[in-house]
Amino acid sequence: MSTLAPTRPVETDAKPGAVALARCDLMGAPPYSEVASQLIRRFLTPAHQAALTALRGWMIEAGMSVRMDAAANLIGRYEGATPNAPALLIGSHIDTVRNGGRYDGALGVMLGVDCVAALNKAGRRLSFAIEVIAFGDEEGSRFPASMTCSRAIAGVVDQGVLAMRDAEGVSLADAFADFGLPGTNLSAAAYPAGKAIAFLEAHIEQGPLLEAEGLALGVVTAIAAQKRLSVRLIGTAGHAGTTPMGLRRDPGPGAAEAILAVERICTGGTHGLVGTVGRIAAEPGAFNVIPGAVVFSLDVRAETAAARDAAVAAITTEIEGIADRRGIGLQIELMQELAESPCDPALTDFLADAVSDTGLTPRRLPSGAGHDAMVMSNLCPTAMLFIRCEGGVSHNPAEAVAEADCILAAQAMLAFIHRLDARLAA
Amino acid sequence: MSTLAPTRPVETDAKPGAVALARCDLMGAPPYSEVASQLIRRFLTPAHQAALTALRGWMIEAGMSVRMDAAANLIGRYEGATPNAPALLIGSHIDTVRNGGRYDGALGVMLGVDCVAALNKAGRRLSFAIEVIAFGDEEGSRFPASMTCSRAIAGVVDQGVLAMRDAEGVSLADAFADFGLPGTNLSAAAYPAGKAIAFLEAHIEQGPLLEAEGLALGVVTAIAAQKRLSVRLIGTAGHAGTTPMGLRRDPGPGAAEAILAVERICTGGTHGLVGTVGRIAAEPGAFNVIPGAVVFSLDVRAETAAARDAAVAAITTEIEGIADRRGIGLQIELMQELAESPCDPALTDFLADAVSDTGLTPRRLPSGAGHDAMVMSNLCPTAMLFIRCEGGVSHNPAEAVAEADCILAAQAMLAFIHRLDARLAA
Repeated sequence: MSTLAPTRPVETDAKPGAVALARCDLMGAPPYSEVASQLIRRFLTPAHQAALTALRGWMIEAGMSVRMDAAANLIGRYEGATPNAPALLIGSHIDTVRNGGRYDGALGVMLGVDCVAALNKAGRRLSFAIEVIAFGDEEGSRFPASMTCSRAIAGVVDQGVLAMRDAEGVSLADAFADFGLPGTNLSAAAYPAGKAIAFLEAHIEQGPLLEAEGLALGVVTAIAAQKRLSVRLIGTAGHAGTTPMGLRRDPGPGAAEAILAVERICTGGTHGLVGTVGRIAAEPGAFNVIPGAVVFSLDVRAETAAARDAAVAAITTEIEGIADRRGIGLQIELMQELAESPCDPALTDFLADAVSDTGLTPRRLPSGAGHDAMVMSNLCPTAMLFIRCEGGVSHNPAEAVAEADCILAAQAMLAFIHRLDARLAA
Repeated sequence: MSTLAPTRPVETDAKPGAVALARCDLMGAPPYSEVASQLIRRFLTPAHQAALTALRGWMIEAGMSVRMDAAANLIGRYEGATPNAPALLIGSHIDTVRNGGRYDGALGVMLGVDCVAALNKAGRRLSFAIEVIAFGDEEGSRFPASMTCSRAIAGVVDQGVLAMRDAEGVSLADAFADFGLPGTNLSAAAYPAGKAIAFLEAHIEQGPLLEAEGLALGVVTAIAAQKRLSVRLIGTAGHAGTTPMGLRRDPGPGAAEAILAVERICTGGTHGLVGTVGRIAAEPGAFNVIPGAVVFSLDVRAETAAARDAAVAAITTEIEGIADRRGIGLQIELMQELAESPCDPALTDFLADAVSDTGLTPRRLPSGAGHDAMVMSNLCPTAMLFIRCEGGVSHNPAEAVAEADCILAAQAMLAFIHRLDARLAA
């Protein structure tokens, strides 16, 4: 690894959380981005290397010993009161999407470092160790798979991914070699059995709910169960000029009713239900031709597969009724199904209490997007803290987070650590 | 011109209308089609030449003198009782779309020939001449303009069209030269002032209305006024998983309401009002992204510009209300506007009476599609007869017309001619 140091002094006298934010901002440009015009830091690139070099320094400064595992995860360890104790894992991902924001992922890593730095500064040792982890590949923005690194730690990785190639034709195996990890065996990154107490991930919300409710923090209940469907309504194409309204079999208005049904059913739903029609097309798609078919996509998510499936069933019934009533054909195809990944209930209650400790109302909400915590639940109980972001904007250079919210996040995470210590000591 | 003769005997003993149909069928294959696998007869091609050669023979056989004008219109003249009398023009187009049907256009020409043949056989001379015209370019399937030939006759052609090129790069001027009309001057095809009494066009309906009502014939009231608009509803793109339903500015459901409003307003309309949303797209158009914008096309037609504009105004008001209520942006752009072309009311009444003479109810209906009659109304009063076609299908090899309907059409046209003769003699 290179020995690049951060390009401005780390203001370790600032409050925990404020330091984390400043470090994310610092990493918004080269060498921590692959290009100067935007932030892009993909897995196993020199920008990733530079970020880990800086992070390694900050981890050491915070009192941690640092190692890199076989999947290029950088792990800083803050020992507990006794050596070799099981660890609370705190982490998130250090990679970004193309033209991404500075906080998606990185903030969760930096907050972990800030928490340890605060404990270390106070000379506090706990009944468990803390390991702060920077996962290298959550976004899947370089290779055609995501969360390879957390999968490796959680022991659920498929070695076959090493054969994946990026857009330039470089295999993942070769990329590891170029990164200083030749002949890597991803299974070797699996976390030792019985050594992980829990996993805590802090992450920006990437949605507008906390901002809308005037709350800095949220407690994630589950990562949503998701279904993607493709809906095709089939009528009869015809001349837009010569076919009277009463003699049409136009699938367009039927699709319109279906889209409104999706909105109505999902708006009235519970368990974080959301439904989205992101794609829609009429065929053949000419100004002067009544469509022969209209196709649209449907993405339905909820905290539980049961809530999701109930909504999908209600929507399907509604669309079947529309098709029957209008005498048009219907095809519904299931494109993708992902089970929900609930956060650990006891650990989530714990995190909610920790948020209360900061004086905030512990708003519980599901995460509609996937996160490393989803994968880490294969290893140990997980909890996830959301931090308000401006306008709910993410995967975008306009991503923004308030310093005060980051300070509150660090306070909540430290409260969580202290509560966990008290519980385990008891 | 070549001297190709029709490849099977013309059954001139069959009833008027039946002969016309058989000739259309004959012309459904080479040499009257450019290829054997489908019917395609484009302007100034050898297939067009072959069709005119056959037609010339049939016209002569029906008692007409035949000439070709400067725009490659083939015109057969059946003299009236006195030489050089003004003429009733009867015609339609002889060209087809790619992979077209056998009756769209050609049937109207052949019916004109059948009517003259019947008059000639009966030794009947009228107070006016009859000229049967085969327009060469109604469809615009070779050059990027349509109705060049009827425009030339009506005296409203733009000479600039001679510079147009087809897909092979051949200019219209060169195509005329190849056809035997070098250095053609389209203005020379303009019909002499005061010499056209009226124009009558028979054409397949290209829509399902007559079939639905169990009627063989229809009397066209007007060729529809048309407006094409592009409607863009603008919301805020967002993550399909992380944006709660209540915090979305999704333009999709707004577009859905708009599409239903188009259907409702047009279905409730009069004056042959039809409204079609033929294209629709969500942007950026991903499964997991709430659309930032939805764009759809709107094609509105009615017998009168007033009825069309009232509908467009009602739809626009409705969409503005939807956008306001939903807090989304709206842009409506006018893409194309065509005035209505009413058939001559007196002549249309005349044609309706002629249809009644055959024992049929004279169903009046607008034409949603454009026709040469629209252009010919610049020259003289026009009337237009629609003939039922199977399933309303046109521009398709499946185009089909019943022989009995063609016989009724010829009867109605002959009744029209006799009524016109009686009126002009009075």
